[in-house]
This record gives sequence, C-alpha cells and structure tokens, in this order.
Amino acid sequence: MNYSPPTFSEIQTAAERIAPFAEITPVLTNSAISEMAGTELFFKCENFQKVGAFKFRGACNAVLSLRDKDAAKGVATHSSGNHAAALALAGKIREISVHVVMPDNAPKVKIRAVEGYGAKITFCKPTLEAREATLNRVKNETGAIVIHPYNDERIIAGQGTVALEFLQEYPELDTIIAPIGGGGLISGTCVAAKGTHPDIAIIGAEPKGADDAFQSLIKGEIVPQTNPKTIADGLLTSLGDKTFPIIQEHVEKILTVSEEGIVKAMRLIWERMNIIVEPSSAVVLAALLEHPEERIGSHVGLILTGGNADLDNLPW
Amino acid sequence: MNYSPPTFSEIQTAAERIAPFAEITPVLTNSAISEMAGTELFFKCENFQKVGAFKFRGACNAVLSLRDKDAAKGVATHSSGNHAAALALAGKIREISVHVVMPDNAPKVKIRAVEGYGAKITFCKPTLEAREATLNRVKNETGAIVIHPYNDERIIAGQGTVALEFLQEYPELDTIIAPIGGGGLISGTCVAAKGTHPDIAIIGAEPKGADDAFQSLIKGEIVPQTNPKTIADGLLTSLGDKTFPIIQEHVEKILTVSEEGIVKAMRLIWERMNIIVEPSSAVVLAALLEHPEERIGSHVGLILTGGNADLDNLPW
Repeated sequence: MNYSPPTFSEIQTAAERIAPFAEITPVLTNSAISEMAGTELFFKCENFQKVGAFKFRGACNAVLSLRDKDAAKGVATHSSGNHAAALALAGKIREISVHVVMPDNAPKVKIRAVEGYGAKITFCKPTLEAREATLNRVKNETGAIVIHPYNDERIIAGQGTVALEFLQEYPELDTIIAPIGGGGLISGTCVAAKGTHPDIAIIGAEPKGADDAFQSLIKGEIVPQTNPKTIADGLLTSLGDKTFPIIQEHVEKILTVSEEGIVKAMRLIWERMNIIVEPSSAVVLAALLEHPEERIGSHVGLILTGGNADLDNLPW
Repeated sequence: MNYSPPTFSEIQTAAERIAPFAEITPVLTNSAISEMAGTELFFKCENFQKVGAFKFRGACNAVLSLRDKDAAKGVATHSSGNHAAALALAGKIREISVHVVMPDNAPKVKIRAVEGYGAKITFCKPTLEAREATLNRVKNETGAIVIHPYNDERIIAGQGTVALEFLQEYPELDTIIAPIGGGGLISGTCVAAKGTHPDIAIIGAEPKGADDAFQSLIKGEIVPQTNPKTIADGLLTSLGDKTFPIIQEHVEKILTVSEEGIVKAMRLIWERMNIIVEPSSAVVLAALLEHPEERIGSHVGLILTGGNADLDNLPW
C-alpha cells in the first residue's frame, strides 16, 4: 500500500485554509462533572462549530482544496447528516453545486439543515450498500467529485484542526478522548496531537452496538460494521483504509459504552453544562463514566463533536 | 420616600466582590437569528453562570455584604427557583445556613439544585401570599436574615454586574433587552448601563400573561401581579418599591409577548445556538420577533437569564 497519512504540516495548512470560515470553538469546564469523573475535564465544543459539528472543518478543507476545474463539476457525498450539512455549506461558500445522498431515516433536523444550505438531496435505504450505490448513480449522472465523509486525506487533515486548536489553548492536556465512527476525527486527532505532544494518549470511544473499530483493533484488520444498533447516529459507519492505519498506530485504546451510558452522559451534559450535544458527542463522557477502572490522565480533553439533536425525539 | 437606588459605583463594588466566585459569562452571536430579527444581536449567556442563572450575582453580592454577626444567623428567602439555588450556593460559599421557601409547583430541576447546595427547603402554595407568610414563619423560627429575591439594593447591584460586563466587552451596544419579573435584573441593568452609556435604550420584555410591569408603567404605580399565566416561571412576581422607581425612570418601553412566541423563541435558541435556555430567557428574543414594527437599535444586547429548563417537561 502506498498510502501516506496526512502530515502535521498538512493539518496546519488546513487550519489556515478554513480559518476565514470555521469557528474557533470554546472549551468549557464543569467542576461537577469533573468530580464525577475523578479527573479534570476539558470539553472542546464543536457543537458550536458551523453547521453544529466538527464535520465542517473537514468538508471545508476538502472543498477549498479542489482545483477550480474540479470544483466546477460540483461535489457529492453520502452522509447520515453532519457531513452532508458540512459539505452543503462548504459548497455554498465556494459557490458550487452539492449533491447529498442521505439515508431515509436521517434525523429531520439534519435533513432541514442540508436543504437550508441549498444542496440537492437524494434519499436511500439506511445501509452502507444502498448509500454507496446511490452515490455512484448520482456521481455518474452529475459528474460531481465525490468527497467521502472520512476516508479522504483532506477530510482527515481538516478534522485534525480540532485537536490542533484544543492543544494550542490547553497544552497541559495529557489525554484526548474522541468518538469513532468512520475514524476521520480520531485519525486527524492523532496526527495533530502527536505532532506537538508525542506522549499524549489518544483514546477512542465507541458504542457497544457499533463497536467495529474496537473489533478491528483486536483483529488487526478492518472489521466492517454490519447492522449497527445505537442511538449515536453519527457513529454507524465502518473504518476506512485511510483512517484505520493511523488508528492502529496511534490510538492507545478504545472504550466501548452502553446505550444507557450514552443517554445518561448526554443528559448530564445538557443538565449541568446547559449546552446541547447530540448522542454521538456524549459517547466520550460515557466512556469515562462507565470505565472508572481505566487509568486516565489528570487533564483529559473530550471532543464534543456536534449538537444537532432532534428536539422532537429526545431519548428520555 | 427616602429610598435611594444603588449607584453605578455600588455595581462596580459588587462586581469586585463577586469576582472570585461568579463566572464572566460568554457573549454569543448567531447570524441566522440576527437576520430574522433584522438587526445585529449579542446574547449574554447567563445560562452559563453559576447555578445556571444571573441570580447568583445578586445573591452572592448580598450574602458577601452581610456583617459577620448577621451572616451567622443564616439567610432565608422565598423563590420559584433560581434565586433559591443562588442563595443556597452563596450561603454555602460563606458557610452559613440557608432556608428557602419554594412553591410546591417549582420545576424539579430547580428543587434538586437547591437541595444539592445543602439548603433547607420549606414548600408552600404557589401564591405570593403563601410564600410571604411561610417565609415569615421560617424567619421567626430560625432568626435568619431575609434576602428578598429582587426588592433589595444589594441584589439589584449584583444583577447590575451583567450589564457592566456586557458593555465592557461590547461597548458598541445601543440597546439592551432584559426580561422583567420582579425587576431586579432590569433595574440593575439600567443603573449599570446608564452609568457608562447615558443614551443606551433599556427595553423590558414581559409575557402577556404576566404583564404587571407593563401595566404599572401605564398606571404610574405598581400594579400587583395576580394570577399570572405563563410558561416563563421566573417572571411571575410583582415589581417592588425598590425596582419600580428605577424602571419608571430609565426603561424606554416594555414589549409584551405571547406564550407561542416564547416557546418559538426558546426553540430557536436551542436549535440554532445549541444552548439550553429556560422559557424566561426566551422572552427577550420573542419580544424582538413579535414586534418587528418597533424601532430597535443596530447593536442589540439580549440577556439570556438562565438555563434551568425541565428536560422532562419541554414545551414542544
């Protein structure tokens, strides 16, 4: 395999490229939750990012990286939601057409967001096969450039800017916990964090009901996610061949969590911090609270990935 | 009447007094909501204040102002919720006993918070008469010093620190909109804001179902609030003789809003800003959105007063 992962300097370039459009998101602390976790916690609030999720960073970096003649063809992707909205906004910024394939069970709030940015949506069955087949058809019909939601160096580099910013503001962090869906965020986190903090521990958090990354690390090869069952609708996808090698090299461990743990952590964040996070975001706190036996550092950064919860369909 | 309202310098003193304990709360902006309102909006997020509400500022200032021999008697109050939690935490900080009279229909989340800070709660019927009679009994039984939730110079001065901070960070504001319950926040806002910005417009926002302040300004005397009907459970109380004169002198106008308008504005803030605000906070945005005919300034500050929404009982 002649794949080389994005470098630290590519993440710095991504940060400069997206700076005019992306938010530098705030880091919040909460003494009550830190006390419950038994360590000092720092929450990187990507729920305050444009489109309400870190996904804007990767999509923005990818779209702005395109050569003009490619950009003119438009872009296309499949996504359960946040990458779709992110690509839609990034395309709007570059003034190109955006085609999005979404599973027909995607949360309404995410569908509305994508429509709001002017992208064209094609719905399909909520399986990876249906998503890929439909995207292929859209690509053939439109000639658009496909921007994969995570298995893409430009996406990985863009997502890495979260950790870059996080460690610039809080260089004392000794651990970062990020959720794992397709692995774009955590692989970018690895490259960014190890670039300045070679000894930092990067820990993954994953629902037990979609633990393909956990299984993949054990088996030493990508175990595809089949039939995921979790409320964390942003973490249903399988790892990609561009994210798995980075995870294999750099991620210290993956902690899996129960559905009750996710809902409990989500509610805790809402109630104590007065911020809105979606279930996929709560997985990182659930990992800490459900694994008190794990030795975790003394300054732990948690990436809260997004805030697009469906307010008509809350899990309590 | 020989009452003299708190001075600007007393608000500055309050700010110094509470600084070790209170948060300097962030100011957020949101381009989508600003566009809907047709002016540039700045949201002062007191939902991120200690106890999740601006009330901590006044309670903390009042408790820390007490002479040692008075503080030793403990403090007592009646409150539908946020002032109760605020006094409980302020008393905990000063290590004195705190007695709180709460209406038996107070939101559970607020009751739990008060208990969590170690205050002693006495429940009563949800009428002003029952609250005052019960508080009187508690005071006689315990000898505690009563800290009124709003009709108190120390409380007014403490609440004034919100506007002090707001204008220090955003001196370009030409308008501030605050909700009106008993008037503690808006009267403190008037003194603080007019101290540095004599021409700033201070506008009150009030539910139509609890519009006693609106009626009081028309009649030129305090019209007590009887039988209030609104989801904004922090705005049920009548004005006091220490808040009304300040409001009468400085508040440009009071805009009243419908219940649907409050819920719509609350949901808009949750969905677009990914922060949790309680209904009473949403009244300020509802006022703007329901009164497009009003001439409002070009840089409008909205005080989001608190975030203690009952997550089991949402209004949509």
